[in-house]
Amino acid sequence: MSYHKPEAKAVQELKDIAHRLRIHSITSTQASKSGHPTSCASIAEIMSVLFFNTMRLNLKFPRDPSSDRFVLSKGHAAPILYAAWAEAGLFPVEELQKLRKVDSDLEGHPTPRLNFIDVGTGSLGQGVAVAAGMAYVGKNFDKADYRTYVLVGDGESAEGSIWESLHFAGYYKLDNLCVIFDVNRLGQSEPTSLQHQMDVYRKRLEAFGFNALVVDGHDVEELCKAFHEAANTKNQPTAIIAKTYKGKFFPNIEDLENWHGKPLGDKANEVIKHLQGLMIDSSPRPAALAPQTPTKSKPAPVVDITNVQLSSPPAYKLGEQVATRLAYGTALAKLAQNNDRVIALDGDTKNSTFSEKLKKAFPERYIECFIAEQNLVGVAIGAACRDRTIAFASTFATFFTRAYDQIRMGAISQTNVNFAGSHCGVSIGEDGPSQMGLEDVAMFRTIPGSTVFYPSDAVSCERAVELAANKKGVCFIRTSRPNTAVLYDNNEPFAIGKGKVVKQSANDQVLLIGAGITLYECLNAAAELEKAGINARVIDPFTVKPLDVDLIVENGRACGGRIVVVEDHYQQGGLGEAVLSALADKRDFVVKHLFVPTVPRSGPPTVLIDMFGISARHVVAAATEIQKL
Amino acid sequence: MSYHKPEAKAVQELKDIAHRLRIHSITSTQASKSGHPTSCASIAEIMSVLFFNTMRLNLKFPRDPSSDRFVLSKGHAAPILYAAWAEAGLFPVEELQKLRKVDSDLEGHPTPRLNFIDVGTGSLGQGVAVAAGMAYVGKNFDKADYRTYVLVGDGESAEGSIWESLHFAGYYKLDNLCVIFDVNRLGQSEPTSLQHQMDVYRKRLEAFGFNALVVDGHDVEELCKAFHEAANTKNQPTAIIAKTYKGKFFPNIEDLENWHGKPLGDKANEVIKHLQGLMIDSSPRPAALAPQTPTKSKPAPVVDITNVQLSSPPAYKLGEQVATRLAYGTALAKLAQNNDRVIALDGDTKNSTFSEKLKKAFPERYIECFIAEQNLVGVAIGAACRDRTIAFASTFATFFTRAYDQIRMGAISQTNVNFAGSHCGVSIGEDGPSQMGLEDVAMFRTIPGSTVFYPSDAVSCERAVELAANKKGVCFIRTSRPNTAVLYDNNEPFAIGKGKVVKQSANDQVLLIGAGITLYECLNAAAELEKAGINARVIDPFTVKPLDVDLIVENGRACGGRIVVVEDHYQQGGLGEAVLSALADKRDFVVKHLFVPTVPRSGPPTVLIDMFGISARHVVAAATEIQKL
Repeated sequence: MSYHKPEAKAVQELKDIAHRLRIHSITSTQASKSGHPTSCASIAEIMSVLFFNTMRLNLKFPRDPSSDRFVLSKGHAAPILYAAWAEAGLFPVEELQKLRKVDSDLEGHPTPRLNFIDVGTGSLGQGVAVAAGMAYVGKNFDKADYRTYVLVGDGESAEGSIWESLHFAGYYKLDNLCVIFDVNRLGQSEPTSLQHQMDVYRKRLEAFGFNALVVDGHDVEELCKAFHEAANTKNQPTAIIAKTYKGKFFPNIEDLENWHGKPLGDKANEVIKHLQGLMIDSSPRPAALAPQTPTKSKPAPVVDITNVQLSSPPAYKLGEQVATRLAYGTALAKLAQNNDRVIALDGDTKNSTFSEKLKKAFPERYIECFIAEQNLVGVAIGAACRDRTIAFASTFATFFTRAYDQIRMGAISQTNVNFAGSHCGVSIGEDGPSQMGLEDVAMFRTIPGSTVFYPSDAVSCERAVELAANKKGVCFIRTSRPNTAVLYDNNEPFAIGKGKVVKQSANDQVLLIGAGITLYECLNAAAELEKAGINARVIDPFTVKPLDVDLIVENGRACGGRIVVVEDHYQQGGLGEAVLSALADKRDFVVKHLFVPTVPRSGPPTVLIDMFGISARHVVAAATEIQKL
Repeated sequence: MSYHKPEAKAVQELKDIAHRLRIHSITSTQASKSGHPTSCASIAEIMSVLFFNTMRLNLKFPRDPSSDRFVLSKGHAAPILYAAWAEAGLFPVEELQKLRKVDSDLEGHPTPRLNFIDVGTGSLGQGVAVAAGMAYVGKNFDKADYRTYVLVGDGESAEGSIWESLHFAGYYKLDNLCVIFDVNRLGQSEPTSLQHQMDVYRKRLEAFGFNALVVDGHDVEELCKAFHEAANTKNQPTAIIAKTYKGKFFPNIEDLENWHGKPLGDKANEVIKHLQGLMIDSSPRPAALAPQTPTKSKPAPVVDITNVQLSSPPAYKLGEQVATRLAYGTALAKLAQNNDRVIALDGDTKNSTFSEKLKKAFPERYIECFIAEQNLVGVAIGAACRDRTIAFASTFATFFTRAYDQIRMGAISQTNVNFAGSHCGVSIGEDGPSQMGLEDVAMFRTIPGSTVFYPSDAVSCERAVELAANKKGVCFIRTSRPNTAVLYDNNEPFAIGKGKVVKQSANDQVLLIGAGITLYECLNAAAELEKAGINARVIDPFTVKPLDVDLIVENGRACGGRIVVVEDHYQQGGLGEAVLSALADKRDFVVKHLFVPTVPRSGPPTVLIDMFGISARHVVAAATEIQKL
């Protein structure tokens, strides 16, 4: 496609719009008495060109699956993003004055409570991964011609997560992705490390597989041309490295330090006047230019990701030895059989987590993210946006700690990504503590709206995967490395928030609660206790969040209020504290909590389980001792 | 310094040693029936040259502050690291057969339980940050001539954390740092994304500020020369990019997939025979070559980081409004006044966390890490190794989620780094949820051996900083953005695990526990409750971990076992669940827990505190309701 320069009139309008966006950024942050107008000013021309020249948007349905995506990675520039959509006509510009007010969704940082936002941003360095996930879907699953744009600040480009994602985009030749770097030279507390070394940015991006274009970020014609080149570059993503100035066109503020995150205060009027003076038409009317609409040539297909089911029920024999991580892979492939939007992502652990089972069945629906967990999570979040896919992201449970910030932001982004963490606890054995998930339940429990599955056998694990696929919000499935006996009939129904009593008698004196390998320790302990004349009831919680409070209270009461919880996890935030929270406002319960008390070590699984106090022997001791309470 | 090639005999010995290291890697993983011999084989020549030609080590005192540092970032190659030290003479080679045994410290991944290991590795991509921290200290604080080497796998070089640290090393011109990339082409589950594209690695490293040398990683002469060049390159760190083969010299295994993390099994003997055939001298005696010893020219100075105190006591007026984050900065500068090894690191938030107070007082002792929290934490851990510094790393509390994996590994590394997280909870207001720390207490509580301070006023915050400086293990200090009234006299003593009763009467009916801004909500609630005829006692826990269990139990009992806990944090893993854990095995307590129940939003702090259920009004309601229980 040959490039047609925009008409002189359009160029002038784009310039005027940029200034209008600057003015909105000033007035809205004046109204909120907080915010980042100077961080908006550096991207005013970029936003003007993107929204009024380059991007194809649907103002009637901002989340139209066929429209271009835009991710504002530097989320603190939210005011100008809101201003762009308002100027485009999505909502009245007067609304902008509600910025950061408690009764407005125009929050300090973008939130998908707004219908034109796909993901929350504001924790820096996360936008490129999300955009790469969207672009991967656009290119490989939707095979549509929408494009994905992500705007990155130069300060945040110090985040390693950015470079993980740039590598990913380069490796997968995401030519439908355009990453714009706003190199405005100034961070929050001092100049950025690279300041205006545009050539260093260019070399880095080229080395990471990008078509890298350095432009004057305040020149709308250069920007129009660069975006055109990006759209016409094949087999390579494009980076537009824009040299800009923080507070551009704000006299006595532009390019100066100590203006990060501050409204202009008593300088605002003077600056606004100056900006109006730069405009050909400074009348406060909506922009004459309007965004382009989505092309009709290659729209995104209609997809349905609701009501996904296993293609066949679990097929195990009672007592058969199967690791839950293996059952995870089996279930994933079965789900994928029934819905072609079920995808899996992994960080080079697919032969350990068994996500490789999906890859083997449907190679094109597996995304290898290599050893880069932050990008893994971000790509999954991007891939799940606008309900394009049901994404399952897996690695060792403990390596999700690498992406805690991304998962946290995932909740703000209202993501439905499912995470599967294998190799939990000391039961992995010889590899030692660096590989053991001992804080993963605590981490995922803190995520608002999350569901935490901790299946103990293969049957329940397959059902956990099926339930997760259909459950909104972040789901986490904790799987174990060792084989464990199949406990449930293949037809046993499972539901979120519903546990199972797996052993009971008419006169139980203690309730044992375990999950994964510790459920079996509880069962063994119950057998031992029986010999000693103590009847124990055993519960498998199935989900740690939500926890089946009624089941625990009812059965705990039936056992004299005596409960022993045992888990292959540290003390804090796991199953034990979940049980304690459930019982907080009830008197007459006593809980003994067995957990891994310190950094473990290498050794055989059974030895470690005993050494760190979570074996049947310790459960027996706790259950015996609790009889006195 | 001109380069003298090693003698032919030395070259042959280095080759022989490499093979001997390979054989140890095979036999030890055979004995443990698990481990990564092929990942060892690719670095055998690198290890041989480093240990027997290049590095200056002290075998009598492996943690000699003047000796070179070596970090094995690809921790799964631990067997060959152990073998190198054994061959060097630190311990008998027979010990290697105890690899991964529960009664040996030769764990599956390196651990500082071993006296020759500085930090735990095994979660990939973390070694360069740690090494950069060591190198920064060597160059700028110790001003000594020890050098730092870090060996990185090609698989893990996909981790963004690596690139954060490479940028850091390049920016600070750490010419005493040498990063070796073992480009063995194969990951765990498939080839790496870049395989043997050596030129791509070179371009990336050069763009990140490195002197980048591509070498044949199995050629000991090339390696000797490259390390020499590295040592003589000024103002730039060096990257040695070694082209290697996984399982090198293992016939029918070398460069083949599906051999990651597997002992050689029945192929072991044949491979060992093959390796012996490649050696000039295959007798099982210790190596003739020995490591060089540390130079005496520029040794590391003697430092004392014990018993550090504030240069002057807190100096506030009761009732004065001071944010704890400000008091943090004040205390940090005071500590630094008294000990020149107190340093601060921040990720471009120093004017928000107030770590800038240290920078202003002692600019050379502040390390700006820009917006790269993983590297921030890793550099701090490296800087604190071998007790060279007392490191305080700060950013917004929630941004430590970005480095949870590094902090987790920090516990395995037995680090003493102190973390300060500002801007906790909804009380930050308009910036919105992406900036609010609402899971930070949960995160830091899970860290084994950690201390979690949550000071509520400026006096206690200064003391928290002082206590943290002297406390072993990970410390976390949670600071708040808003101003809060000074509650304590400047001479009030504080201790870890000791809370304070800040309000009480002879006949209290409910115990209120809050921290930070919620402590003031409790005090306000107590005043309200008093009007309604309910006497409330109020506790400031000071440390959430360890929690002052005795104080809570005693005072809780005095209040009829009725406790209301209120915190500016999510439900899971915070102060509330810490209290519940403390009361787990006691009957006759009921707890009402008030917390932030969902993703918050932008708005004025006081409005949000009320909207999300943690204001005095809600405390009053809970305290009233709990009277029925």
